Amino acid sequence: MPRVTIKEIARRAGVSKGAVSYALNGQPGVSDATRARVLKVAEELEWVPNRAARMLSAARSETFGLVLARTAKTLSEEPFYMGFIGGVESVLSTKGYALTIQVVPDLETEMAAYRKWSAERRVDAVIVVDLRVDDPRVPLLQKLELPALVVGDKSLAGGLTCVWTDSTTAMTEAVEHIAELGHQRIARVAGPPEHGHVWMRGQAFAAAADRLGLTGTVVHTDFSGDEGASVTRQLMTSGPDRPTAVIYDNDLMAVAGLGVIHELGLAVPDDVTIIAWDDSTLCRITHPTLSAMSHDVVEYGGRVAHHLFELLDGAEPAAHLNSTPKLQIRGSSGPPPA
Amino acid sequence: MPRVTIKEIARRAGVSKGAVSYALNGQPGVSDATRARVLKVAEELEWVPNRAARMLSAARSETFGLVLARTAKTLSEEPFYMGFIGGVESVLSTKGYALTIQVVPDLETEMAAYRKWSAERRVDAVIVVDLRVDDPRVPLLQKLELPALVVGDKSLAGGLTCVWTDSTTAMTEAVEHIAELGHQRIARVAGPPEHGHVWMRGQAFAAAADRLGLTGTVVHTDFSGDEGASVTRQLMTSGPDRPTAVIYDNDLMAVAGLGVIHELGLAVPDDVTIIAWDDSTLCRITHPTLSAMSHDVVEYGGRVAHHLFELLDGAEPAAHLNSTPKLQIRGSSGPPPA
Repeated sequence: MPRVTIKEIARRAGVSKGAVSYALNGQPGVSDATRARVLKVAEELEWVPNRAARMLSAARSETFGLVLARTAKTLSEEPFYMGFIGGVESVLSTKGYALTIQVVPDLETEMAAYRKWSAERRVDAVIVVDLRVDDPRVPLLQKLELPALVVGDKSLAGGLTCVWTDSTTAMTEAVEHIAELGHQRIARVAGPPEHGHVWMRGQAFAAAADRLGLTGTVVHTDFSGDEGASVTRQLMTSGPDRPTAVIYDNDLMAVAGLGVIHELGLAVPDDVTIIAWDDSTLCRITHPTLSAMSHDVVEYGGRVAHHLFELLDGAEPAAHLNSTPKLQIRGSSGPPPA
Repeated sequence: MPRVTIKEIARRAGVSKGAVSYALNGQPGVSDATRARVLKVAEELEWVPNRAARMLSAARSETFGLVLARTAKTLSEEPFYMGFIGGVESVLSTKGYALTIQVVPDLETEMAAYRKWSAERRVDAVIVVDLRVDDPRVPLLQKLELPALVVGDKSLAGGLTCVWTDSTTAMTEAVEHIAELGHQRIARVAGPPEHGHVWMRGQAFAAAADRLGLTGTVVHTDFSGDEGASVTRQLMTSGPDRPTAVIYDNDLMAVAGLGVIHELGLAVPDDVTIIAWDDSTLCRITHPTLSAMSHDVVEYGGRVAHHLFELLDGAEPAAHLNSTPKLQIRGSSGPPPA
């Protein structure tokens, strides 16, 4: 019995369809005894108000949407996304909301998903991640009037509500830590340059290296462990002037880089200092443990969900600073080789 | 312009509403020129067929559902779920499908979600995890006629399509490995006893320990790292007859257990042998690396998604054996202390 109709309830309760409608909608026009009988039958039949009918009257979907223009592998490997989604769900679960996740190959497909979700009222709001410089998703979402919260810097959010972390302050702290240890040649294993936070960290890295008189190398990747490993191999086999300290844009690449460094017969931190970014559990279970720019990613996801509910309640667009990543010094930090 | 109506398209294209309807539905009754003009206007306005209207005609939602009656923390910490969800999405993304995830406190709330999703046609099918003995979700899903795929043993699936791994064979292999190393006292840090696969592993553990003349202790947890750690502490401080080998029901508890063992000043594997379960990346980056019952969880998720699409295409219910976890011997395996 996949679809329970008012007609069926009326038949079983031995009353008219009109009486069922009054009873189920809590309206006057039926006796208490009839109302009780109708409700009992409806319950036995697992009756629930028809979603399609409710949607036509603009009810909420009680669902938020998240489109990821990354590989599905990201979900299984990237501790940031695991932590972030767990944090979002920790708030959604207290309100009976669901999170719909769609993995797409590119931004074009991501934008098509927003058009579809908006037109079909599939979600009440969306979370937009991996914000770009001049991001085409921002004007689209404004045009669609689909409530949206952007995870990224306010300078890129185009007036949409955003939750951001201060990449500039964090990267400056990371470079200063390496300079204080005495390193001269440092590298940065970065995500794709078109990502806003990658770009901002890059500006801060260059400025701090310049100010402190360090030689800085930047290599861009797709954030995957595989590319983190291959780029680390290139850097470590680049000759006598190889960098003696590496800052990674996430934990996954740092752990993969550590594996490659060990494979090459080099030691951390005696030969190379490593700094990870985000500071998931991974950083605390490697040997040596990894220094990292640390923030609470689960709490970050929870904050995002919290501000989404505020948006639905009519809050004006605003920029919310989440905690800025702080340096957590562990076993992978040391002076450069003599 | 959140909602584009036929009326608005008609106004802008300078034709009747009927003509717009014919043009958008690909029916005869309008000239090619009119059809082209209507489609162009519809595209400019980001028009998409109204979901609610389409749902009333029983179109598919292009969404699968997954309810997790675990804590949201599970999503951020448990490598099994992130690997599994990544695997599901790897197949869904090739078909433009989304996955709706809802985290709920208990089975009652999980069943309420299925009733709602079914009545409101929110999902085309659901993935049911953490199958129990005499699981009340099985008869509910049959009654709702909501297509469902159960992740769990066929003996518990009540005739629903299931994808299962052979827990009995895998656990027997784990216990035999420990016996061959020479251990006499072994422990099992298990998930909740009401979970079907936990129960089946328990039967196999008891049978193998008995056959091989080992003393076996079983402690149940909620699968979390926190409980994995506290239970390991109890076991390791239980006196001179403490177990010298521990089999964990997941990787997370094994990694947490390793940390506690090190804290207590004991060595792995010199004082204790550790076997993890699932074999995510975690097992390869700890020191020492962890022996594990290994299977490809990402591929498991992909298989589940594949069989879901088969179900939608009208496949008969069936039980599919996924790969059985195989022992992967690493640095945490060794003989008992002398």
